[in-house]
Amino acid sequence: MKSLVLERKNEVSLRDFPEIDRDEAALGPRDVRIKLHTVGICGSDVHYFRHGKIGPFVVRRPMILGHEASGTVIETGPEVTSLNEGDRVCMEPGVPDPNSKATRLGMYNVDPAVRFWATPPVHGILRPTCVHPEAFTFRLPDAVGFAEAAMVEPLAVGVHSATKARIRPGDIAVVLGAGPIGLVTALSALAAGCARVYVADLAEEKLRIAESLHPAITAISVTTDSVAKRVYRETDGWGADIVFEATGSPDAAARVFDPLCPGGCVVMIGGQSEPIAFDAGAAMVREARVENVFRYAHAFPRCIAMLASGAIDVKPLVTRKFSFDESVRAFDVAASGPPGDVKMQIELPQ
Amino acid sequence: MKSLVLERKNEVSLRDFPEIDRDEAALGPRDVRIKLHTVGICGSDVHYFRHGKIGPFVVRRPMILGHEASGTVIETGPEVTSLNEGDRVCMEPGVPDPNSKATRLGMYNVDPAVRFWATPPVHGILRPTCVHPEAFTFRLPDAVGFAEAAMVEPLAVGVHSATKARIRPGDIAVVLGAGPIGLVTALSALAAGCARVYVADLAEEKLRIAESLHPAITAISVTTDSVAKRVYRETDGWGADIVFEATGSPDAAARVFDPLCPGGCVVMIGGQSEPIAFDAGAAMVREARVENVFRYAHAFPRCIAMLASGAIDVKPLVTRKFSFDESVRAFDVAASGPPGDVKMQIELPQ
Amino acid sequence: MKSLVLERKNEVSLRDFPEIDRDEAALGPRDVRIKLHTVGICGSDVHYFRHGKIGPFVVRRPMILGHEASGTVIETGPEVTSLNEGDRVCMEPGVPDPNSKATRLGMYNVDPAVRFWATPPVHGILRPTCVHPEAFTFRLPDAVGFAEAAMVEPLAVGVHSATKARIRPGDIAVVLGAGPIGLVTALSALAAGCARVYVADLAEEKLRIAESLHPAITAISVTTDSVAKRVYRETDGWGADIVFEATGSPDAAARVFDPLCPGGCVVMIGGQSEPIAFDAGAAMVREARVENVFRYAHAFPRCIAMLASGAIDVKPLVTRKFSFDESVRAFDVAASGPPGDVKMQIELPQ
Amino acid sequence: MKSLVLERKNEVSLRDFPEIDRDEAALGPRDVRIKLHTVGICGSDVHYFRHGKIGPFVVRRPMILGHEASGTVIETGPEVTSLNEGDRVCMEPGVPDPNSKATRLGMYNVDPAVRFWATPPVHGILRPTCVHPEAFTFRLPDAVGFAEAAMVEPLAVGVHSATKARIRPGDIAVVLGAGPIGLVTALSALAAGCARVYVADLAEEKLRIAESLHPAITAISVTTDSVAKRVYRETDGWGADIVFEATGSPDAAARVFDPLCPGGCVVMIGGQSEPIAFDAGAAMVREARVENVFRYAHAFPRCIAMLASGAIDVKPLVTRKFSFDESVRAFDVAASGPPGDVKMQIELPQ
Repeated sequence: MKSLVLERKNEVSLRDFPEIDRDEAALGPRDVRIKLHTVGICGSDVHYFRHGKIGPFVVRRPMILGHEASGTVIETGPEVTSLNEGDRVCMEPGVPDPNSKATRLGMYNVDPAVRFWATPPVHGILRPTCVHPEAFTFRLPDAVGFAEAAMVEPLAVGVHSATKARIRPGDIAVVLGAGPIGLVTALSALAAGCARVYVADLAEEKLRIAESLHPAITAISVTTDSVAKRVYRETDGWGADIVFEATGSPDAAARVFDPLCPGGCVVMIGGQSEPIAFDAGAAMVREARVENVFRYAHAFPRCIAMLASGAIDVKPLVTRKFSFDESVRAFDVAASGPPGDVKMQIELPQ
Repeated sequence: MKSLVLERKNEVSLRDFPEIDRDEAALGPRDVRIKLHTVGICGSDVHYFRHGKIGPFVVRRPMILGHEASGTVIETGPEVTSLNEGDRVCMEPGVPDPNSKATRLGMYNVDPAVRFWATPPVHGILRPTCVHPEAFTFRLPDAVGFAEAAMVEPLAVGVHSATKARIRPGDIAVVLGAGPIGLVTALSALAAGCARVYVADLAEEKLRIAESLHPAITAISVTTDSVAKRVYRETDGWGADIVFEATGSPDAAARVFDPLCPGGCVVMIGGQSEPIAFDAGAAMVREARVENVFRYAHAFPRCIAMLASGAIDVKPLVTRKFSFDESVRAFDVAASGPPGDVKMQIELPQ
Repeated sequence: MKSLVLERKNEVSLRDFPEIDRDEAALGPRDVRIKLHTVGICGSDVHYFRHGKIGPFVVRRPMILGHEASGTVIETGPEVTSLNEGDRVCMEPGVPDPNSKATRLGMYNVDPAVRFWATPPVHGILRPTCVHPEAFTFRLPDAVGFAEAAMVEPLAVGVHSATKARIRPGDIAVVLGAGPIGLVTALSALAAGCARVYVADLAEEKLRIAESLHPAITAISVTTDSVAKRVYRETDGWGADIVFEATGSPDAAARVFDPLCPGGCVVMIGGQSEPIAFDAGAAMVREARVENVFRYAHAFPRCIAMLASGAIDVKPLVTRKFSFDESVRAFDVAASGPPGDVKMQIELPQ
Repeated sequence: MKSLVLERKNEVSLRDFPEIDRDEAALGPRDVRIKLHTVGICGSDVHYFRHGKIGPFVVRRPMILGHEASGTVIETGPEVTSLNEGDRVCMEPGVPDPNSKATRLGMYNVDPAVRFWATPPVHGILRPTCVHPEAFTFRLPDAVGFAEAAMVEPLAVGVHSATKARIRPGDIAVVLGAGPIGLVTALSALAAGCARVYVADLAEEKLRIAESLHPAITAISVTTDSVAKRVYRETDGWGADIVFEATGSPDAAARVFDPLCPGGCVVMIGGQSEPIAFDAGAAMVREARVENVFRYAHAFPRCIAMLASGAIDVKPLVTRKFSFDESVRAFDVAASGPPGDVKMQIELPQ
């Protein structure tokens, strides 16, 4: 099966990968086989490509990339009840141990045994087909196209973050970071009840995209403006109800409480490789609540429902598409970080 | 001061009302004087007009009607700091005892000592000017017109209800009742994160208006369709996450749990004059949470922010306007209950 | 296997029951086989005995009674990891579908597919041994005896109810009903942070038992005193933060809001066979939250931990014991409802 | 009026302080005058004594110390309704702006305008009498003595922290730090539903005191044991539901997530003068919730109710008493930090 393989740091190739054929020859009773249609390129894919590792996860053997995916069911296991051959679907890339304590409590994302696509040693799905559990495969309504469906995975991070924030209608939010996760978080925060979302970043081009997405998004260029001053000025000195940290930058994390109102909530989304400087005094005088987000749980059906009804529109975030044949070049382009792009996707032959 | 006075049941007149001039001659140090601009006609105004009472509140002396209002500040008390002469504002009609236990806990709406406009023996504000505490008077941004501002009061009920429901993004809601409160609740539920809101009513004309407000609103005519069956069919048999009861009808209240999912929430908004039949068994097997709503608290600034940013649009709900001179006729029209109308407003001379 | 069989309404016998031997001959890979030690007699067991049914659950064939149980593991399936032969355990009587949506969301108790011991057509465990899933079998620490362990099942209802109430330390609670569930709820409410719990009942003897359990329990005899008046008098007119309805009586349910404070919470525990009269006006002016409880979820380990540490002591609730040979008589005694008894238990031969 | 005055760093004296007589000559309409009975010595009093400042709060002029106090009402303002001359009371030392946004939302503790006893430039109450608002003065039931009542202030920190944690009955907690705040937090966590509380500290003597307070408290000596290893070993590898940081030590704060379970909560109580090293990765994989505590709000009545009912017993924490005449020596003793003491109190002449 021809697959997009990360051979080693800085080297991807499109080639046959017999191992995966063997792995997925069998279909479990509650599994489905899916023909992939669209796969988004995630920052983590690019990070593995450029660095060969993310934190403790090191690519030691060739690994197929890709985990943001949509496709079509082509085979169903004998005990599958909710899906049929021909169903258009998107897939949740992480599969937990169904018997773990975290899973049984409804928090499967924090189950340490989760196996997640394109996280060593688990292969991703930049390949023609894959086998996946029914429970983590979601049928698409007609109103949701394959490109949007392949956006559900990153959107789920935003929606989960907005859920954790427990937004109340009319809240004011700040999103630090205008990358793909920052933008889906801003859209999720608005859909979840925020009256206004300030998106802060260094890059003007990203801020222009942010503002183009929704009239209730206000861009703040951190090179010329202070997030905290701006927010206090526009909230009668009260501050923002919620601050989403979506940069992963230690500097940004060190100042998350600055624009926050008394009793407000900070949501930490961006991954950090080292301990951050936590402004305990600023957190304390505000009695801030800090929520830490790790992927998502139970969010895919919610995302699909919101895309279907128009509550969230992610189509403007897909800024470039490649065919599967171009996927090696796609990774070179993605790794170059073109400032005008949000999400690049690869379409597989149907 | 010429005022719209409910003289007694079924009789309103526009006439001088000297008592109110005396009452409001003095301006407290933290009060403002407001020139009224727009006043909406609420169902409760009409109910007092037709019945002379609502539950224990009986109109025993002539009473000025009206409590949904916007206007302009024309005078400020010496300790007022947040408002200035000329500020366009809307006003919260209920003023609690600032020292009560409920108020100090942040729940001033359940303070038994609340004094509420046009609730006997407190006069309403269908009159040229009024005096009101700064703390319950809210400055309008340029983007919010007087008509919308006079809609903040009913909208606050919807926003408060959506807040109580603790909507999570992607929830499915049902709103029972397509009257003004049902409609602002549907808009609030969508703004607060619902992916889809089913609005159920008997009146086809109201359902058409509901569906026209937002693509994610689906009307259900209860004369021809079963709410529960429809919702289960469209949620893979799971049910709605939230049911808002906005009819005040005992029959509707008796069936609120029918379309509700396991672990779901019912929000009781519509007032009931008698105990209702509560389906304890249906509530129990779902472990339903039931929230009971009484007006709102801290909701006005949230509503104004959402109107200003476009998160909620209430302009389509204002379906008819009258001049102050026409206000007696306005009440006759409102009392006739024209099915194509949602909210009628009266504009005062400026 | 000799079992305590409900042959039909009003007739129990202790006899061989070959069917159950066949049923449980096989041990699934994640199951354990348990030698029963102590089984409590629940009000539902007595209700099936006297009436042959509870609501829609009708005893159509002979059924073994009993679902409050402790015992010793005597065999383990090949995939069992957390339990070993010889472990002293107690068991959760309801087993849901592990793949249902409710179970995956962490709310397995509201999964309609739950199979629950001694609920037709599922047999109970008044018999020498049973087979049960590891996931619903809990090892006992040395500090928890078999009698207490067989009390975990009813205690779990109280602990789950106290959890749903979201008690804050220092809350004042009312428990309506001093039967076994009322008493475990009172103990749970105190353990969960209440400063004082008022227990109300008609029966003086039960109230004496309630007061003997804890110095912070105050009994209210509803024949001579008004719950609401008493609570208001002793809370400076504010009311109780939480009211637990544990009688199942329609009259009690109709007045649950009377002693409740503004913003308070009512927890409905007692089952009702018909819709109850819900005082919507009283609920509304308080903005009451109503939680409806259906059994419990994830509560057994919490109960065991609290019994082990002494946070809750249920030993005084076990007021009478019978040997397995006396179990027919035990049901006759239980059905006679001796007022001085809380919980009767049957001990099986070891 | 003879008062205990911090003249400057390292110098306290008991002397007349005419300024305070003038300040408090007048009694506002909603104020009461209180004859002080017992005043506890807080770590902050000692810190001002030894260092002349805490963070930004610098003692620039002689300041009366003391803020943990009980006494007797000796005069009431004309609008006081809830208190009478002769009432035994304790007092909340921080008084917010009643009109601030934070106060109106029910979070007066995060109002930046709070005036707090013995926090420069506000004088404390180590003096014969004081004037205080009725709203922050609480009548004591007979069951609560003056010594316990003077413990309500520190206890309120523990109860507020336990409230923020949203403890569910049966939770396992860790308290880092066995000083007075650590101990009241441990007692509060148990009263609020924890099945077991691990208290960790360096000082063996403090740990012995901790263990003596309650059978469900387990001491961990961090010099010889690892908190995380111990907790995982005793929770089947799951971890603690809640970790309270009550040391104020940067080292402890850097490791707060180590013993925490997936989905658990960390409550930061101890003040930090510098940013702390926040283990963002550990917080993220657990999706930890972090609550930051600043004093308390609405906690005094709850504390009093729990002391009155016996839900919490703080009497063992009062380990030494001084007369007012000995108060200079009391501060010398307190500053020496005798390891066997928890709380020292000063009794004023009656």
